[in-house]
Amino acid sequence: MNDQQYMKQALRLAKQAQGRTSPNPLVGAIIVKEGEIIGQGYHHYAGGAHAEVNALEDAKEEVVGSTMYVTLEPCTHYGKTPPCTETIIEAGIKRVVIAMKDPNPKVAGQGVERLRRAGVEVDVGLLAVEAKELNEIFIKYITTKRPFVILKNAVTLDGKIATKTGDSKWITGTKSREFVHKLRDQVDAILVGIGTVLSDNPRLTTRLSQGGQDPIRIILDSKLRISSEAKVIKQESKAKTIVATTDQASLEKKEELEKNGVKVVKVGNKAVDLELLLEELGKQEITSLLVEGGSQVNASFWEANLVDKLYYFIAPKIIGGSEAISVVTGAGVEKVKDGVKLDIKTIKEVGDDILMIGYPDYK
Amino acid sequence: MNDQQYMKQALRLAKQAQGRTSPNPLVGAIIVKEGEIIGQGYHHYAGGAHAEVNALEDAKEEVVGSTMYVTLEPCTHYGKTPPCTETIIEAGIKRVVIAMKDPNPKVAGQGVERLRRAGVEVDVGLLAVEAKELNEIFIKYITTKRPFVILKNAVTLDGKIATKTGDSKWITGTKSREFVHKLRDQVDAILVGIGTVLSDNPRLTTRLSQGGQDPIRIILDSKLRISSEAKVIKQESKAKTIVATTDQASLEKKEELEKNGVKVVKVGNKAVDLELLLEELGKQEITSLLVEGGSQVNASFWEANLVDKLYYFIAPKIIGGSEAISVVTGAGVEKVKDGVKLDIKTIKEVGDDILMIGYPDYK
Repeated sequence: MNDQQYMKQALRLAKQAQGRTSPNPLVGAIIVKEGEIIGQGYHHYAGGAHAEVNALEDAKEEVVGSTMYVTLEPCTHYGKTPPCTETIIEAGIKRVVIAMKDPNPKVAGQGVERLRRAGVEVDVGLLAVEAKELNEIFIKYITTKRPFVILKNAVTLDGKIATKTGDSKWITGTKSREFVHKLRDQVDAILVGIGTVLSDNPRLTTRLSQGGQDPIRIILDSKLRISSEAKVIKQESKAKTIVATTDQASLEKKEELEKNGVKVVKVGNKAVDLELLLEELGKQEITSLLVEGGSQVNASFWEANLVDKLYYFIAPKIIGGSEAISVVTGAGVEKVKDGVKLDIKTIKEVGDDILMIGYPDYK
Repeated sequence: MNDQQYMKQALRLAKQAQGRTSPNPLVGAIIVKEGEIIGQGYHHYAGGAHAEVNALEDAKEEVVGSTMYVTLEPCTHYGKTPPCTETIIEAGIKRVVIAMKDPNPKVAGQGVERLRRAGVEVDVGLLAVEAKELNEIFIKYITTKRPFVILKNAVTLDGKIATKTGDSKWITGTKSREFVHKLRDQVDAILVGIGTVLSDNPRLTTRLSQGGQDPIRIILDSKLRISSEAKVIKQESKAKTIVATTDQASLEKKEELEKNGVKVVKVGNKAVDLELLLEELGKQEITSLLVEGGSQVNASFWEANLVDKLYYFIAPKIIGGSEAISVVTGAGVEKVKDGVKLDIKTIKEVGDDILMIGYPDYK
């Protein structure tokens, strides 16, 4: 095995904790001595031991003189655990190969510097693209203090999310809907508009055969029209519900909701100000947000250029109808060339449906 | 090489004449003797020699005792050329391997029967699926006397064909638009609605760097609103223009158009009756029709279950807008489950766009 293969293994390890380390990054580490992996570890959950420490603890042999492959620059600060750089130096590791520097502009490079000053050989940048993709959520959050916004849509081939009568059961198949529950399991929060709550009364929980964790539920509700009996409020779930509202909301309704355990945040005068909301969510250490809105919520996120990643499920069906509901409404652009371009990274079949995953290319 | 590989070669040969044999099928033939291909041929154009005859003429050796692989059952009737069965028998071919029987229910099996009666060994059905796909246009036409209808759409990811201002330049990229010209080159006719003519004044010709042939242009125009100055009428092109209209059209306008070389057909009272139109086109030996309509024409074809094949180009763009124009309008269905399901056969990238090719599954 070569450097690249060791780093790939470290990336694979890191990924095992996907959705479990927020607000921390995903990190994996491998210790190699004389061409053999003698220790490996990853960061399991926020507050738990770092990958480097787990790999050192896992080591079956004396690590002095070995090489460590780690997917992210080791930390230099005392947080919930002591700095990894010191642990690495004390252990006598000879060389550290790092996929990417700490994305936090305030600390980037300090780990590398500390190791080098202690005489450790350091290489940075191996599989950096993969490492950045692995931690796209963390990178967005740590550099902007706002959550990484994932938009999920499920549409017919002709771009509709419901017929003219509002029927939407089911646009996509079982496999696609299962896939969405996996997404819910991996994000900190999920967002819908009040329209969806009023029409569908969804639970917005994660329902996987192996369990999974419920994301925090966020409802956009500028006038607090939500009923205290809505499932997002009444159901059993460890995750809390946040209702984002405006100055238009009545104090009485706000208090009623708060009595029911709901957190109500005011962000905006007439309409919910999404920028303010994202800032607020960032303050609450929500690093990722899955938007499963209707056509109006979708339009609001697109028009404000707030989408970071798109999961787009297309069902091979044509339903037609000038009154059927399009996936994105709102004002829209005047010229085709002014639309948002997407960089589609993946196209795959999920059951009978097609899933496209991409990133917007805001100019 | 084995039977299957020889038949594949015959299919490849047949395909070389794609778009050139209407109203005849595509046919390829290979002659094999002692494991070597000694002759090959295909049907080049309607009225020209059949594949079997071309293969026999191409033969570099004595064909007595050899095997012929042919993609379609040899004919038994005297048409523009003598029956292929007789030529095969006279040539002393020992065995004939046929991919599929003649799809015309009135003649299917007669060629096989004739050969067997003359002592020729005959095998039928090798790569029949591929052979049927190759001749999907011919099969539809010969069994129903109506053209095979290909719907082509070019949409944004959110299912739009134009913005709220009507701007549609360009939804898809250069490569996709080039692909459409290849489609035009391979069909007998192309159809749009009067709305498209009035707003875009298109030429509806085939513009490929290597030339290509213009399809017959068909305009749906129930009230004869078309101008005699429209490009589809005034331009230089060997292909004629047909305007499909109704009893609502004025006789005066009809005569004016006819003076300009346009063929005007009345099919329907108020709206153009698509079923009648397709029958009429079938009578004119139009075996394939490419529909490049707007949202209303698309809806008419979908609502009448008249689409045989779909070419669906998706541009990775979001334009949004509740007033933007969806790819399929019309009445639409009430329930998602009542929509038309599609069997997607191919998904591929064409430049930056994604092309899906599929067949509707009308229940």
